[in-house]
Amino acid sequence: MTKRNPNFANLKDHYLFPEINQRKKAFLAEHPEAKLISLGIGDTTEPLLPHITSTLCQGASSLGERDTYTGYGPEQGYSDLREIIAKTIYRGSVTPDEVFISDGAKCDIGRLQLLFGSDVSIALQDPAYPVYLDGSIMQGVSRITLLPCTPENDFFPDLTKAKGCDLLYFCSPNNPTGATATRQQLKSLVDFAREQRSIIIYDSAYSAYIQNSDCPKSIFEIEGAKEVALETSSFSKMAGFTGVRLGWTVVPKDLFFEDGSSVHKDWSRLISTLFNGASNIAQNGGLGVLSERGLEEVKTHIAFYLENARLLKEALENFEVYGGENAPYLWVKFPGKSSWEVFQEFLEELHLVTTPGSGFGPSGEGFLRFSAFSSRENVQKAIKRFSKISTFV
Amino acid sequence: MTKRNPNFANLKDHYLFPEINQRKKAFLAEHPEAKLISLGIGDTTEPLLPHITSTLCQGASSLGERDTYTGYGPEQGYSDLREIIAKTIYRGSVTPDEVFISDGAKCDIGRLQLLFGSDVSIALQDPAYPVYLDGSIMQGVSRITLLPCTPENDFFPDLTKAKGCDLLYFCSPNNPTGATATRQQLKSLVDFAREQRSIIIYDSAYSAYIQNSDCPKSIFEIEGAKEVALETSSFSKMAGFTGVRLGWTVVPKDLFFEDGSSVHKDWSRLISTLFNGASNIAQNGGLGVLSERGLEEVKTHIAFYLENARLLKEALENFEVYGGENAPYLWVKFPGKSSWEVFQEFLEELHLVTTPGSGFGPSGEGFLRFSAFSSRENVQKAIKRFSKISTFV
Repeated sequence: MTKRNPNFANLKDHYLFPEINQRKKAFLAEHPEAKLISLGIGDTTEPLLPHITSTLCQGASSLGERDTYTGYGPEQGYSDLREIIAKTIYRGSVTPDEVFISDGAKCDIGRLQLLFGSDVSIALQDPAYPVYLDGSIMQGVSRITLLPCTPENDFFPDLTKAKGCDLLYFCSPNNPTGATATRQQLKSLVDFAREQRSIIIYDSAYSAYIQNSDCPKSIFEIEGAKEVALETSSFSKMAGFTGVRLGWTVVPKDLFFEDGSSVHKDWSRLISTLFNGASNIAQNGGLGVLSERGLEEVKTHIAFYLENARLLKEALENFEVYGGENAPYLWVKFPGKSSWEVFQEFLEELHLVTTPGSGFGPSGEGFLRFSAFSSRENVQKAIKRFSKISTFV
Repeated sequence: MTKRNPNFANLKDHYLFPEINQRKKAFLAEHPEAKLISLGIGDTTEPLLPHITSTLCQGASSLGERDTYTGYGPEQGYSDLREIIAKTIYRGSVTPDEVFISDGAKCDIGRLQLLFGSDVSIALQDPAYPVYLDGSIMQGVSRITLLPCTPENDFFPDLTKAKGCDLLYFCSPNNPTGATATRQQLKSLVDFAREQRSIIIYDSAYSAYIQNSDCPKSIFEIEGAKEVALETSSFSKMAGFTGVRLGWTVVPKDLFFEDGSSVHKDWSRLISTLFNGASNIAQNGGLGVLSERGLEEVKTHIAFYLENARLLKEALENFEVYGGENAPYLWVKFPGKSSWEVFQEFLEELHLVTTPGSGFGPSGEGFLRFSAFSSRENVQKAIKRFSKISTFV
């Protein structure tokens, strides 16, 4: 009889967001009248603006015409989309053939974990996006080091703890803390990786939110990064494409394994074998996003969510609040309580759904993540409910 | 320094289709005037029909409106799409929560390989779709048995060779041979798996092409299959969605590992962790495909490609030709020559691109696969060129 993959027994019982959904459901079953507002999962809420919508529609309608119908595209993505990403996002610091189009950063992180296999040691920020850890465990990785990122170290880890690690996951602007690394911090990260000969898996899914010019939008703004880093990113939070599914990963040709073989070559092989390209309609939408008019619409969207973040931060000023300035997330400390306790209180007392910080790692204990992805109306309603926080915190 | 994943060194140097593309490119570089016709890669060529196109367009335009905008959907897929698949494709023999929507069968096969991990023994048809083998090798599987499927055994393998294997890949209608298993054959497959307690990974991506009522369209038409099989399938060849990216996998709740734990539960966890759902636009298109009008359009499309197959088969009647009746592929034997030799001759002499059978496994040596995915005009032109085959074969 077929044995269960032993790696799955090493996973903790619940994935964060399903657990939140179950608690929401249970609460609503008992309080069907409750008008829940979600500041929980980081999911875009605003409709797409006209130009970007029109390029998606055009991508769809073109499939009905003989001259414009397309079947399989290249697994690595359409060349015009790879080119415009290299040019617009990276200003030429990477070449188009180093850009691989995906159906989103989450899926590509899983494929990257397959690329590196089980016999690697990894280090990751604590707290972190759960996929780095859970995906690695599924892949059979057992040598895992958590690097605490807390207010005490300005959310930048003590890298000496990552000594000797093969892979270093790093996300900036960070999900969940909203912390955004400065140029100096990223330089120390790249220098460390160069010294150690580690590979950085850099997640820049929220880089469009960066306003501070001292915080790089890509790891490739740091000299020497192409020899030690790859970068995964996404149209999801930049353009409201969470449901459309479009992202990319940059794998530099300067990145090599210990035996001198090319990471780019193995990645290309993996993508050809186990991926069939992102949806042609989504890719057409990606071209729309990165056009001149699309980028104007992106600015409007980002400004909208950042204003939500500012309003939430202002309303929570009596608490210890981090993030929310170069990121759509606020990271709020509630001393003396566990994250799930405060989560449950926000749910029951304020009918607000948040995300418990401990779901992102042990150093997230005592924190809640607030997401700025919401309509203005809901943010304003949520802020009104905040006045009752003092009754339970 | 980070080591290369040793599994990648076990892969053969070239993935079939990239190699074909390179040979095409090389030929065109020397003969820029050549008007190549492709009967090679199995990629749909006909534009989508109006109703299906309109549901894709509607999926896209709905993202521009506040009331209909959607972000992340459930990782397992939209419930209405899961329901209509359970009802329309499986006539209720599986439940909606056993259907998981994907971005295509190829991607789900990779995820299934991650689900089962590296410590499994597998058996697969030879010849077979290369992803079963290459993806397994990437995942670190080393115990691999090929089951020859040849004219001599009516393309149905000697199952005793798969004795003791954990996973059994089976594709019907088969890519590349076009062979379609009968009810009796599938019954013996299921009985064998039940006896062995193996799990069948059944690929029904081409089931919409089945015309013979004695050939089941799903493994779940066979009694007892839900205890030993899962099934992966796709809208690609059924509805021309190769570029749109939409498929599904059925994982029955009756399927268990040796320790009694649920395969469905681990799969659900994997999908939640490493996948973010198929594109919402594609899923809306999937609902269109399975609507009454959509299914009429599917019939039109399938009939068109099957007529291509019939014409090709008729034109090749002097050769040993298999398939092409319940499948969009013809499998043609050219005795005394290697597949790549005949491939090169078809390319150079007839300016026709085919697929060398040996690329699908050692038992494919000496065969070419002809794909019926082409415009009628190109099929007719290709057939005219066939008259010159006798000059080199």
